[in-house]
This record gives sequence, C-alpha cells and structure tokens, in this order.
Amino acid sequence: MTRTGAFIALDGIDGSGNTTHSKFLADWVAKSLRLNVLLTSEPTIQPIGQLMRRYLRKPNIPSATDALLFAADRVEHVESVIKPALARGQVVISDRYLESSIAYQSSQGLPVEWLLSINKHAIKPSLNIILEIDPEKSLLRKPRLTDKFEDVTFLRKVHRMFLSRARSENYPLVSTSGTLEEAQEKIRNIVKSFLRDSILR
Amino acid sequence: MTRTGAFIALDGIDGSGNTTHSKFLADWVAKSLRLNVLLTSEPTIQPIGQLMRRYLRKPNIPSATDALLFAADRVEHVESVIKPALARGQVVISDRYLESSIAYQSSQGLPVEWLLSINKHAIKPSLNIILEIDPEKSLLRKPRLTDKFEDVTFLRKVHRMFLSRARSENYPLVSTSGTLEEAQEKIRNIVKSFLRDSILR
Repeated sequence: MTRTGAFIALDGIDGSGNTTHSKFLADWVAKSLRLNVLLTSEPTIQPIGQLMRRYLRKPNIPSATDALLFAADRVEHVESVIKPALARGQVVISDRYLESSIAYQSSQGLPVEWLLSINKHAIKPSLNIILEIDPEKSLLRKPRLTDKFEDVTFLRKVHRMFLSRARSENYPLVSTSGTLEEAQEKIRNIVKSFLRDSILR
Repeated sequence: MTRTGAFIALDGIDGSGNTTHSKFLADWVAKSLRLNVLLTSEPTIQPIGQLMRRYLRKPNIPSATDALLFAADRVEHVESVIKPALARGQVVISDRYLESSIAYQSSQGLPVEWLLSINKHAIKPSLNIILEIDPEKSLLRKPRLTDKFEDVTFLRKVHRMFLSRARSENYPLVSTSGTLEEAQEKIRNIVKSFLRDSILR
C-alpha cells in the first residue's frame, strides 16, 4: 500500500515516554493504518550504540565525546537502517533521533551550530514530534536514577531546549503529563494527518 | 628536568613507519635527553579506539562514521591521556593524531573544513612530523593487506593530502624511503632542535 516511506521521530526528555509512545504508535500504524512499519531507536543496538549505552553511565566522559559518538552512531543508523527501510516504502519510527542530541548536548554546553555541523549526514525526519512533560514529573516516572543525565536542574535545561527547538523548527509538541491514552491519541492524530497528506492517498 | 610538557605527533601513510619511529623516538628522548616521555597512539586502546580497530576492517562503514569515531576517540585521548601528561610535564609522543584523520578521511571524500570542525576539541601538537614514503614502497613493507585503506590508488591520494597539509601547515617532512637509521636520525634532529627551543634550556 505504501509507495514512498515516511520517517517519524519522537524526542523528549527522559521520562517523557518516548519509548512507550513509539511502540504504541508503531503498533497502531501497522494494525490500524495497515502500513509497513519499522520501529527503531537511538542509541542503536549496533556496536557504537552499545558502546554508548555503557558510556552514558560514566560521568567523566567529555560531552564532546558523547556528542561525536551519537553522531557516528546516527550516520550508521541512517545508512544501514533508515534509508534502506524508506527505500522499501516503510514507515520508520525512531524512538529518539537528532533532536535528543541537540537538546541534551547543548545543555552540556556544546553550541547548537556545532552539533548540527557534526550531524550534517543525518537526514531530516519527515515528521518530528516532541513529547513534553514537567521535569520533576518525568523523574517520578523513572524508578531508578541510572545515568548522569537524570538530575532535575539539568533536565530543566534540556526541557527548555526541546521547547525552544520545537518553536523554532515548528515541531508538533505533545504533552505527556496526563494519561498514556490521551497523549497517544494526540500523537496518532498528528501522524494520521501527516500521513494522509503524504503517503495515504 | 622538564617543567612544561611538549606534544609531538607523527603522522603519515600506512607503511611510512609511524609506529616504529614513534617507539625509537620515545626511547631516545627518555634515554638520551633524559626527559619524562609518554608514548601513546591513535586509535587509542580505550573502548572507542578498540571498537574502531574492529570497524576499520569493514568496508561498508560510512566514512562519516569513521571520521566521527576518530574524533570521539581523540577527545577522550586528549582529555584523559594527553592533557594530564602535559600537565605533569611529560613529553607526549603520539603515533598518529589529527593529521592522519584529515589525510585519510578527506581522501574518502569528506571536506577538510568539516573534519577540522568535528575535531575542534583536539588540541594542536607543539610539533607535528609527517613521515613520507612512496605509496607503492609503503605497501611492500606491509606483509598482509588487512584493512580497507590499503589500496595503492587510495594511498596515493592520502599521500598527496599529507604533502599538501605539510606545505600549508608548515609541518616538517621526513622521508622514510631509505634506511630506518637515516630517517630516525632526521626525526631526532628535528625533535632535538624543537625541544632545545622550548623545554630544554
């Protein structure tokens, strides 16, 4: 049914529900819209992504190293997973993508222009949804604090950065402060309207 | 004896003798000049460097991924190895550094300006020596072709890039086409004269 693929990314602070909403969305696009879906995520499950999952736990890794690893992992993600899926006509849904790097790493003091420059090989999603939640609330949803990014002052900075990027880049914002169903419903409406204008005709 | 450190990098095409000359040089600086030396190399022996040693073997890794991994490994190298050694007053000798990335990755089609931009957190060596050898000759010195960079047409491109960077950045060039002793002698003279002007007084 799909002829040209579509690339949808979901970003937001930790605890905003990216992973859960990406899964529910992928399931709904496949079952209700009957489109061929590929659900993927960053950091990826490939070797660079795996290394990063270990590195993200360490407080002494320079932020530029984090940023460059994210960018390296992303180039591979784009070339070996996303582009081939789009070429097959699939709807690619990525649980986190470039905007998470921009928000998190700029909050660590790296300039947005440099982050965009090191990521210049990353293709732009056709639709990028930003999930939005109060940082205090997001932390309550995480059972354990496991990595260096999960501190409320830092998360507030990241949160502001996501809001600022959503405004300047015109990304749809979805609040996930209410129930899971409410937020998922909003996400589905945005995706349905987007796909109707692009690949569902 | 040393009060302020010095950072010396040796770069050149594969087979130009970087590793051998770095070792001989480090030994000589320690024994003859009686300076405190730290010999290091890129890719590093840290997790990112180890991952890269595996990745360099694979022909299907995008060149931008290679470049970003080199840059990520280098930030960590600088922050956790080079800067602390310089602060201790050591003479740091690196078997390959930024110029190898510039020459190899620009020869894979990536713009030099972008390579410099992704490496903007890498400090500049106080002395950067470029080892120079005819690409055909360099290949004869490698017993087995083990990675994707070891092909004569490609090496010729890299070789030209090293020469062009040496010219524009005013790096000393040392031919390693003759005997090991001849080249090492030239390298020692360059290093001695550099250290005499900087830390040996």
